[in-house]
Amino acid sequence: MYYGALEAGGTKMVLAVMNDSGKTESRVSIPTRSPEETMPAMIDFFRVWDLAALGIGCFGPLDLNPRSDTFGFITMTPKLPWRNYPIYREFSRKLGISVAIDTDVNGAALAEAELGAARGSSVSLYVTVGTGIGGGLILNGTPVHGLMHPEIGHISIVPSPDDPAPDGFCPYHRHCLEGLAAGPAIEKRWGQSARHLPADHPAWELEVYYLAQLCATALLFFSPEKIILGGGVMQQKFLFPLIRKKTLELLNGYIPVQLLGNLENCIVEPALGTESGITGAYLLARGAALGNPDRRG
Amino acid sequence: MYYGALEAGGTKMVLAVMNDSGKTESRVSIPTRSPEETMPAMIDFFRVWDLAALGIGCFGPLDLNPRSDTFGFITMTPKLPWRNYPIYREFSRKLGISVAIDTDVNGAALAEAELGAARGSSVSLYVTVGTGIGGGLILNGTPVHGLMHPEIGHISIVPSPDDPAPDGFCPYHRHCLEGLAAGPAIEKRWGQSARHLPADHPAWELEVYYLAQLCATALLFFSPEKIILGGGVMQQKFLFPLIRKKTLELLNGYIPVQLLGNLENCIVEPALGTESGITGAYLLARGAALGNPDRRG
Repeated sequence: MYYGALEAGGTKMVLAVMNDSGKTESRVSIPTRSPEETMPAMIDFFRVWDLAALGIGCFGPLDLNPRSDTFGFITMTPKLPWRNYPIYREFSRKLGISVAIDTDVNGAALAEAELGAARGSSVSLYVTVGTGIGGGLILNGTPVHGLMHPEIGHISIVPSPDDPAPDGFCPYHRHCLEGLAAGPAIEKRWGQSARHLPADHPAWELEVYYLAQLCATALLFFSPEKIILGGGVMQQKFLFPLIRKKTLELLNGYIPVQLLGNLENCIVEPALGTESGITGAYLLARGAALGNPDRRG
Repeated sequence: MYYGALEAGGTKMVLAVMNDSGKTESRVSIPTRSPEETMPAMIDFFRVWDLAALGIGCFGPLDLNPRSDTFGFITMTPKLPWRNYPIYREFSRKLGISVAIDTDVNGAALAEAELGAARGSSVSLYVTVGTGIGGGLILNGTPVHGLMHPEIGHISIVPSPDDPAPDGFCPYHRHCLEGLAAGPAIEKRWGQSARHLPADHPAWELEVYYLAQLCATALLFFSPEKIILGGGVMQQKFLFPLIRKKTLELLNGYIPVQLLGNLENCIVEPALGTESGITGAYLLARGAALGNPDRRG
């Protein structure tokens, strides 16, 4: 049995065909141009295989309300040719197979929950901290959707009194998490890219404070067993012990320490690295083949 | 088939026996004294019935980790005679039937999700705003636990510049939600009980701002279809439209307005009133009778 997997990004599309045991049979990467240019190439790639289903981890925002007429549309994306594009419906029609779609970050979160750093956890949160901040919450093997998909990057955060730009940079919310702690916020605040800031730069103390607020809020809100922090900014591995320590400080003993320990096993790095996106799409395809109704597979 | 339901509170215990269709066959309330005094009376009440299972919605904090040796213990409660009391184990042993236990607020959340204001929702949040602030998150009919049970009352909140006591009153976190917006915080800040403050008192604008932050964070974090606000403070019904409006302001258009509307169907009153606790315990018993493994039933 073969499964199609598509990691649909704003810059490039990664397409793969994988077998029952997850082995990759074929894989290509193509630049994301307009749907008119890019879709036929993708359809052609998948069509030669006898696929059981296709899974799509897609850039967003997406309409994922299964009762909506525009289910599986890419909605208000700044990538104008893809705005309101019915990507789910097009693949369903053209390939004539079950298709499952979710956000790219939910796909990555699913992959980490099933096969990566959160394997065996009933509740896990995956957060990517890079150009933006996004997150996926997985409960018992299923991404949480509710009214829409979560937009964890935009939760409200208490700015630090030491922050030279405490108003933040989010055009919607100013000092939300993304407005204070995403890569572009770091760069705007300090006038240079996060990647070039040394480990003793005050930028990192702020970053730790903001990401620790995210972790503390997550622990209080739904007590995930794993909080996986990925994305470009988290390539700075020295941040992990600092974020764990600051999170414990913010919780101030409220969650019993025997449950949390030093958070070494709770706030962790991704295990799948850059493979989480395509792996998540593969898992979505597997779910669709099994007829997972949540994902309209 | 009969089911036992226990709403275990710090002040009183409500015990009921209900049948398959939820009809109450017998019900008593007894004051919460020490376990030595209270437990035998409760065992006696339940023992005369041929119960399929018992459900307990219990004051906390509780150990709800099914892999823990102290599963179902009341842990660090300020009610000293009940501290580290194995309430789950005692009922299991003495009654010899399946027992399910969860926090009181998770029980109420479950009741509202199954039979009340969140009926038909896949993701719902129930929050009680009273002497403390607690919440239960229900996903597809099951309370979310993860590492422990959530402690939503202690999430970090941005104090208002108009708050005469912006440091808050939580002994653990100062200006967390409970430290800023629970009944006792209102009373300490203004020198009189929330119940006596008129609708045009500035207390309410602050309260609206703080509860709207909770709602916005919940919508961004896991996009519940319903946020049910209950408890003593929410008896002030005029707060609901104000909280909805402020939540939309805080989100600032980030979540598409066609999904949210004016939030009239999203941020709502409880439907079960004071019956949610005992109803939740009944639903826990039903789950235990079906052998729900999550609740060790």
